[in-house]
Amino acid sequence: MENAKHVSKAVISRLPRYYRTLRQLANEGVGRISSKDLAAQMDLTASQIRQDLSCFGGFGQQGYGYSVDKLIVELERILGVAGSQRAILLGVGNLGRALLRNFDFSFCGVRPIAAFDTAAEVIGRDFRGIPVHALHDLELFCERERPDIAVLCVPADQAQLVSERLVRCGVRGIWNFSNVSLRQDHLGVPVENVHFSDSLMKLCYHMKATDPFEFGE
Amino acid sequence: MENAKHVSKAVISRLPRYYRTLRQLANEGVGRISSKDLAAQMDLTASQIRQDLSCFGGFGQQGYGYSVDKLIVELERILGVAGSQRAILLGVGNLGRALLRNFDFSFCGVRPIAAFDTAAEVIGRDFRGIPVHALHDLELFCERERPDIAVLCVPADQAQLVSERLVRCGVRGIWNFSNVSLRQDHLGVPVENVHFSDSLMKLCYHMKATDPFEFGE
Repeated sequence: MENAKHVSKAVISRLPRYYRTLRQLANEGVGRISSKDLAAQMDLTASQIRQDLSCFGGFGQQGYGYSVDKLIVELERILGVAGSQRAILLGVGNLGRALLRNFDFSFCGVRPIAAFDTAAEVIGRDFRGIPVHALHDLELFCERERPDIAVLCVPADQAQLVSERLVRCGVRGIWNFSNVSLRQDHLGVPVENVHFSDSLMKLCYHMKATDPFEFGE
Repeated sequence: MENAKHVSKAVISRLPRYYRTLRQLANEGVGRISSKDLAAQMDLTASQIRQDLSCFGGFGQQGYGYSVDKLIVELERILGVAGSQRAILLGVGNLGRALLRNFDFSFCGVRPIAAFDTAAEVIGRDFRGIPVHALHDLELFCERERPDIAVLCVPADQAQLVSERLVRCGVRGIWNFSNVSLRQDHLGVPVENVHFSDSLMKLCYHMKATDPFEFGE
């Protein structure tokens, strides 16, 4: 296994984009791709792509390009999305429902097995076959089913308590949509905090940077 | 104005995190912070923080730290989130509703002014005061109201067409949740593609990297 500790955060955060792009290419029937063409697809430079992929052993051949399928399999192994992680979702509001109904968990090798909420009107329902249980059954359920990942869609003021409870239940990773930053060093398991505002701010930045009126100042 | 072209993508993508962290600190009543303490908050190194902020002029004083409020104002200017951009949202399904109901647009200096959908049962309703109009009224509305940003929550197969239509309507930036990658070089305006799968894959990677069983191999 590659030593994950020597790979920079910047490279790691680009890997999912590589994976998405390559899956898209495979869907389109592309079998091989040069670093130059992959660079054009991804808005990176060819040398950056060669450098990124070389962090993980470098699977390209000079003048021959990369095998799309091989790279996909390799990235699945590196990212750890090849297995079948089992997920539970906490908080079946609009965002929770959007994820249950529309998000392709299987793309990431993840399988949602249950959702939890406290609202009587949603407990007992199911979304695309995923049943909603009462939150007070969480401990019992986790003891029996041993989910790997928790998808946190609860309100911000409940995020810390619910996540601590999830860790006590043996959950090994938290995908956090609750709009507060949870910390891995506090919880003891990996956390990905999703902040929608980050991408909206990036958009504002780029709109400003390309605005002819601003440049005219 | 600083020359945006000389700032690396990596720095730009960290700026929203700086902004979020500093706003949080200001909320907690923190007036000044050293690069070391800010680094600890953000899981970065002090030297990286000094380097990042120096890209934009460097507002710290040796041994005295950064003024939180000054840095916030400066970041608002740099990110272009200080003004009041007007946004419309397309596609009032679960995700669209989640954003309209719960997302704090004002945090990014953005104000949602209307939403659009094709479903009769949602047209005419409003969410936190934001009215939902029929999609066929888009052109008329944009001519009158001149929105800056479009938040795209339509199904993947409609994303390209709707986004082209939005650009013809004069929208200057697209915040895209439709799970297909739209390209700025095709559309002619900045796009931020939000891919939930990227953060889930990163979580899987970190879970794998910290899994004692995996390391034991």
